[in-house]
Amino acid sequence: MGLLEQTLAEITPQDTEWRGRATSRLEQLTMPHWALGRLMDLAVDLAGITRSLDPPIARRAVVVMAADHGVALEGVSKYPQEVTPQMVRNFAAGGAGINALAEPAGAKVVVVDMGVAGDLEDLVKAGKIISKRIAAGTRSLAQGPAMTREQAIRSVEAGIEMARGLASGIDVFGTGEMGIANTTSSSAIIAVLCQAPVEEVTGQGTGIDEEQRRHKIAVIKKALAINRPDPASGLDVLAKVGGFEIGGIAGLILGAAALKKPVIVDGFISTAAALIANALAPNSREYMIAAHRSAERGHHVALEHLKKAPLLDLDLRLGEGTGAALAMHMVEGAVRILTRVATFEEASVSKADK
Amino acid sequence: MGLLEQTLAEITPQDTEWRGRATSRLEQLTMPHWALGRLMDLAVDLAGITRSLDPPIARRAVVVMAADHGVALEGVSKYPQEVTPQMVRNFAAGGAGINALAEPAGAKVVVVDMGVAGDLEDLVKAGKIISKRIAAGTRSLAQGPAMTREQAIRSVEAGIEMARGLASGIDVFGTGEMGIANTTSSSAIIAVLCQAPVEEVTGQGTGIDEEQRRHKIAVIKKALAINRPDPASGLDVLAKVGGFEIGGIAGLILGAAALKKPVIVDGFISTAAALIANALAPNSREYMIAAHRSAERGHHVALEHLKKAPLLDLDLRLGEGTGAALAMHMVEGAVRILTRVATFEEASVSKADK
Repeated sequence: MGLLEQTLAEITPQDTEWRGRATSRLEQLTMPHWALGRLMDLAVDLAGITRSLDPPIARRAVVVMAADHGVALEGVSKYPQEVTPQMVRNFAAGGAGINALAEPAGAKVVVVDMGVAGDLEDLVKAGKIISKRIAAGTRSLAQGPAMTREQAIRSVEAGIEMARGLASGIDVFGTGEMGIANTTSSSAIIAVLCQAPVEEVTGQGTGIDEEQRRHKIAVIKKALAINRPDPASGLDVLAKVGGFEIGGIAGLILGAAALKKPVIVDGFISTAAALIANALAPNSREYMIAAHRSAERGHHVALEHLKKAPLLDLDLRLGEGTGAALAMHMVEGAVRILTRVATFEEASVSKADK
Repeated sequence: MGLLEQTLAEITPQDTEWRGRATSRLEQLTMPHWALGRLMDLAVDLAGITRSLDPPIARRAVVVMAADHGVALEGVSKYPQEVTPQMVRNFAAGGAGINALAEPAGAKVVVVDMGVAGDLEDLVKAGKIISKRIAAGTRSLAQGPAMTREQAIRSVEAGIEMARGLASGIDVFGTGEMGIANTTSSSAIIAVLCQAPVEEVTGQGTGIDEEQRRHKIAVIKKALAINRPDPASGLDVLAKVGGFEIGGIAGLILGAAALKKPVIVDGFISTAAALIANALAPNSREYMIAAHRSAERGHHVALEHLKKAPLLDLDLRLGEGTGAALAMHMVEGAVRILTRVATFEEASVSKADK
């Protein structure tokens, strides 16, 4: 049995007993019933995920998966493909948005080359990034499958390996990504797996105008017509219209779920990857925490498909894991509520009249 | 000239030049234009408030103002009045929601007795809380004015004194409160200052049922009919239907604004206090950061009146400053974006094609 099959077999639902214990504790806290709302829901999830009333969350990492996309050459992005390796260098140098936001969230940034079209060997040798490189970018999904089935499996297994490799030192994972044109791939994935019209799930990405968006929609429609990805198969969808970093994120999510650790899913592209993970193992959904509602059109379609309400809604559309880093603070708050607040009895506070 | 008049005279708008400088920097960062959305808007506000491209925010405090309300005896709350002093003891012992959430946000909790109906002298002597005590609770607003005009001024000035006293060691203020029945007072304030129907701005507070809510609405309507608070006068509204902690929060906001420091306004009750501050000095609005959208009915009416979009929306309805503590993380993130992210030039990243 390969790593993927083995991992899928290890993914079980959240533990309902631990959820119940957490709920019971939260209902006795010195505050009106469930007065911290979504933070308390999150605390119950964390207890159910980790099987603990003191869910370990101190050690955090945002794993930023980077890869290039052949479809970038079809004019779907506002930025040239060379920006992918340039931004990886920016991550490694600590100058990107994710670096700025991960540090105060107590999260380390782990950058993974899943298949960037550019030479990053110096960063790998310097220990600044990890290479799980599959190829120098995918092929254009508008001309045929983006990758082979074997490459799809390897990309997911690379993500699983990342989760397993980090597991001894990390309690909470966040997902992040970089890859010029990866909203095109993500929109295609969402359209297929959520059975949604391409127009409804295709947005402005890095900031293209309406005419360019119409072109992007046409490219995606062509890709779906040529490739006919099978909505019943996460691997087929990934292979035909996905990306190496998207496969990597799907694998990271599956790996976290198998390890019974929470994984904070960032924005649009990460949620497309979460749909792949969900297609491969529906129970993996129970380990996902939706960080934020992206400004990218159609993100809500993917979130609703996963039945996830995001924690934040700040018009973010950067990716990199920036929303996941911000959401780490909410995860910490949720655990604090569970572990640090006194009950009515402990604090000798009078209960409600009825 | 008294402290209040002096403070009101010192409040000026945000600095548009510093706002422009921050905007210009943010537009050059290595990311698509304004890709961190609301966090970038917040960074511009912080620059305009503090007149700096590196807004000081390291030293933080949530000031929790506590007081009792005579109207509590009219059956508007689910909890008995004794819970106010009990919860103050819980704050002092570190066992409440605000204690759990302020610590990871790097904020100290400063508890102020503005007029609790109970003896808290031991906590004052032990240095656990500060006394700015005006009386042992207000009178019932359903029977006449909640307080005298002099008490209203003293409560606001007490809040200003708190801001001034803390100013040498605190960069960012958060507001918080505790006071059984203070949603009744807050709904009355919002109804008057936003000219909104009482039904639309009166909610379930600590969790009363629909029948009790109808009673609460009737009590507020009676209070407005008896007292006829003048919507053109923040002090008149505060005196007639307010509370000592609400006056204190209004003063804290005015004091912060005069000091050109950001103040994070927590939820329903804090926003009612912000309306009083806004009525006294409309420019104080520019120093307020709305923490979150409370689950309490009618909060959005007050936020819209202040033209504020809250940062978080987590179904919180606890008060105490819990939302303000969570929002401190967003303030930190905003400053990090402004100060820690490289520009395209600095990082040698290619710009958009156009």
